[in-house]
Order: sequence, then structure tokens, then C-alpha cells
Amino acid sequence: MSKSSNAAVTILGLGLMGTALAGAYLAKGHPTTIWNRTARKGDDLVAEGARRAETPAEAVAASNIAIICVLDYATTRAVVEPLAGALAGKLLVNLTSGQPEQARAMAKWAAERGIDYLDGAIMSTPPGIGQAETLLLYAGARALFDKHRATLAVMGGGSVLVAEDPGSALLYDIGLLGIMYATIAGYFNSLALVGADGVTAKTFTPYVTKWLGAMANFLPEMGRQADERDYRGAEATLEMQATGLTHFIEAHEARGVDPVPVKYIKGLLDRAVADGHGTDDLARLMEYIKKR
Amino acid sequence: MSKSSNAAVTILGLGLMGTALAGAYLAKGHPTTIWNRTARKGDDLVAEGARRAETPAEAVAASNIAIICVLDYATTRAVVEPLAGALAGKLLVNLTSGQPEQARAMAKWAAERGIDYLDGAIMSTPPGIGQAETLLLYAGARALFDKHRATLAVMGGGSVLVAEDPGSALLYDIGLLGIMYATIAGYFNSLALVGADGVTAKTFTPYVTKWLGAMANFLPEMGRQADERDYRGAEATLEMQATGLTHFIEAHEARGVDPVPVKYIKGLLDRAVADGHGTDDLARLMEYIKKR
Repeated sequence: MSKSSNAAVTILGLGLMGTALAGAYLAKGHPTTIWNRTARKGDDLVAEGARRAETPAEAVAASNIAIICVLDYATTRAVVEPLAGALAGKLLVNLTSGQPEQARAMAKWAAERGIDYLDGAIMSTPPGIGQAETLLLYAGARALFDKHRATLAVMGGGSVLVAEDPGSALLYDIGLLGIMYATIAGYFNSLALVGADGVTAKTFTPYVTKWLGAMANFLPEMGRQADERDYRGAEATLEMQATGLTHFIEAHEARGVDPVPVKYIKGLLDRAVADGHGTDDLARLMEYIKKR
Repeated sequence: MSKSSNAAVTILGLGLMGTALAGAYLAKGHPTTIWNRTARKGDDLVAEGARRAETPAEAVAASNIAIICVLDYATTRAVVEPLAGALAGKLLVNLTSGQPEQARAMAKWAAERGIDYLDGAIMSTPPGIGQAETLLLYAGARALFDKHRATLAVMGGGSVLVAEDPGSALLYDIGLLGIMYATIAGYFNSLALVGADGVTAKTFTPYVTKWLGAMANFLPEMGRQADERDYRGAEATLEMQATGLTHFIEAHEARGVDPVPVKYIKGLLDRAVADGHGTDDLARLMEYIKKR
């Protein structure tokens, strides 16, 4: 049973993620209309009370909020472009993965047709959808986000608007996932390192999770140095870290592990030291990250 | 003024770190003897109450606990080998950086001479020494660590014995620092990525620190999969991640950033998919980390 205060929503796309999104709205009592482009999906959702639309036009007509989560932006455009008239004056929320440029182009397309548009990125796997901590990043007009905040929070309690630039949700998404893959690369390297000496992941990982917390405390100072291009070093200069890095690489290689991320940092550090920046802090490497 | 319950300690090596260690003991009222191999250092420590020894033998004679923190293991050996007789029956704590193999050899040397030995790694820069949260990793006999726990905790409240293998503190140290450098590599890549679109580190970093907390929640499951070599995938299989990884790399390269850690993961993932493991989870890459 839906409560009158719960906005009706339409979910376009019933992959694993779209199905989870629809399930979250149904669980909170929102009138929920579903549609999928290819195979007939969503029987479980219908059993939970969803209304299945036969066409995307019928789906969009059923709610003032349409949420699309499909394979890519080309698919998104193929679905929504024929619906421009039907979407005018309504909110289109696009949670499809892609590049910031694609989100910016989509926002421009929507604005030209009088469609309210928010772009978003889901920082979770499907089982996290609907939970209080789950982070979704949104991009678009702040007034629009604020107006629909409660409805959007149904998908994840940690929903935030990162910026009004419609590309910013995907930009932050790519940045955060890049950090995730880098951290995982280091984690896997280290599991192989300690594993070679007989230490299990179960034994080692509690130190890793605690260590991630320590890192969260010192990254902001590195970020400040990067913003201000003020790299003056103190107690952990590039020169002092060079020796340690050589040891770390040797310890990995002695155990058959190629620690690519550490070697990447060491390569940048060697260039910075060669350029006379040996007494600077690690954030100096920011000047060597971008290709010239 | 020292309290009688505070053990006397000797600090060998007065680099930035050794000076911080001595300072922490002085601040807590421990009788503290200091010695440095090369330049005469420690005037500030003497002003705070430290006793400066003229020779390492004199330094070691003054306390039942000697803590050495010098450049490398070769230096450690050069300092302590002539002191074997004087150290017999006392505790030698070695906080010098090096390889696990070096710590194991050092422990064997100490055991053969009746010297109690703990090897340690300081997971902090000097300003963190003496604080309640600061993590020091120790390796050696648990009974020895337990006996001296309170005295060791003066250097860092988070002091723990990781294992009795005397190489384990340095092994974990290298593993954790490898993860740190990998995470920083990803962080710098992402700062350059978002910076190319006008986003500052100050704006982006709060999302990063929150994201590190999210990672701390899912790494243990990856570790379990690695321990059990059970990589069966569910909602984020290698096939599903491959497309996203291609997008992430393209987004970085479009902004002049070479995302080496992400490309490393993508390379491992492509090999795993080519071997028919596309429906497995990311932990399958553990099988590709070690050189064959």
C-alpha cells in the first residue's frame, strides 16, 4: 500500500541495479512503474506491487519522476530521445555509467526540451541499494536535488549533490573508483607479499582496514599541498622515502610479486629528486602525474 | 622527575625518529639515556633531562632496555655487535627499517647471545610518536612483549605484537606501506583527473576519506576469497568490471593522466577473463599477482 506522501516513480531498465532500485521504492511504499527494453523482466517486482509498462511512453506517463539505469549513454539516448515530449516538465534521473562529457551533453539535451535532469552515480553494488549508508553522487541544479532529496534518498541514505556541473557525479565516480582499484592493487600485492611468508589475509587484513583509517587522516594535508602547490617537506621528504621505496620493491620482488603501483610512485619520485626536489614532501609528485 | 615505576631506557640513534622516541620517554618521566653514532646530537633532550652517554657501552649499561633506531640494519649491527656482552640479559628493541630476513637474522644473533630481542616498525612520522593512536608493530616472543608492553606503549599507544616470527613486523610494515603508496598513487591520479575539470583537492578529498571507510568494509570479503581461493562472483564480476575499467582509463587519459595502477588491474583482469574466469569476482586476480 502506497502512502500519498510517497512520490510515484518509474524505473527504466531492469538489470541487476535497476531491479534493486525498483525494489527499494516498492519496499518504501512508492507507486512504482517498471519497464525493460529487451527481455521481459521484473516478475518478482510485479509480485511485490510494481506496475509493468508495455512501452517506455506508458512508463514515463505513470510518474513525474523517471529513473533510468541502463548499459551506457548510447542506450539511454535511444530510450529517452523519443520520449522528449512526455518527459517535459518531469524529472529524469540518469544513473547510467559513462563519461562526464556524456552527462554534460545529456543535461544540455534535457534542458533544451524543458526536462528537469539530474545525473547520478551509484557508489555501491545492488545489495547496498536502499540502505542508510549507501552513497549515490548526484550532479545538477541544487534546487532540483533539494526538492527531490527525500525520494532520491530511498535508493541510498548517503545521497549527495556533489556539484551543479552535470558531469561532476561521473567525474567523482571515476576518481573514487580509480582510487579503489589502486588500493585494491596494493592490497593484492601485499596479500601476496605476506602470503609468501605464511601470513593469511584473515590475519593481515585487520591491520589494513585500520591503516586505511590512518590514511584518511593524512590525505587532506597532501591535498592542501597539491591545491596550493606548496610542497615544502618536513619529516618525510622524498629523499628519505626513496630508500624505503627501494626496500619495499625488493621485498616484493624477492617473493615473486611485481608491485606496479609502488614502482610507479618510485619512478615519479626519482624524477622529482633528479629535478632537485629531494627535500619536498610526496605531494610534489602531483607535478609529475600529468603528461606534458 | 622520574617515578620509580618507570623503566629506564636507552635510545641509540638520534635522527628525527630517535629524538622523538627519547622525547616521548622524557615526557613520561622515564630515566632516559641517549647516544648518537656520528654528530653530537640531543642538546634539547639533555635540557629536558636526558643523560648523554659518550659511548654505546656506557649507554647500554645505564638501562635494562635499549632501543635502537638508525639508518639500516648494517648500521644496527655495527653498533650492537661489539655490545653483545653488555646486552646479555637485557632487552634490545630494534626499530630500524629493513627486510624481514634481516630482522630474522638479527633475532637469531641476539638469541645466541642471551639478549632478549623485539623487532619493531613505526607506522608514523616523528610527530606521531608518543600519541595514544600511534601504531607500532612488534615481532618476537609474546611473553617478552607482554612483559614490556607498558614501556613500549610510551612510544605509541597503538603498539601491538603482530606475530612471534621476528620478521613479521617488517613484513607487515612493507605490506601496509605498499598499500599506502598504491592508494596515494590512485589519489594523485584522481586529483589530476578532477583537477582537469576544475575541482580542487579540498572539494574532492572529503569524498575520498569517506570512500576509504567504505573500502575497509569490503576488503575483508576479498581477503576471505583469497585465503579460500573461492572466487565465485555475484554482482560485480570481472566481465562487468571490464567495461567500467576501460571507461576509467579513457577518462584519465583524455585529461593527460596515465592511471598506472588502474591499468595494472585491467591487465590482470584481461588475462583472467581470457582464461575463462569472467564470471568470477575481483579476488580471482590474486592468482595473477605472483609471477610464475
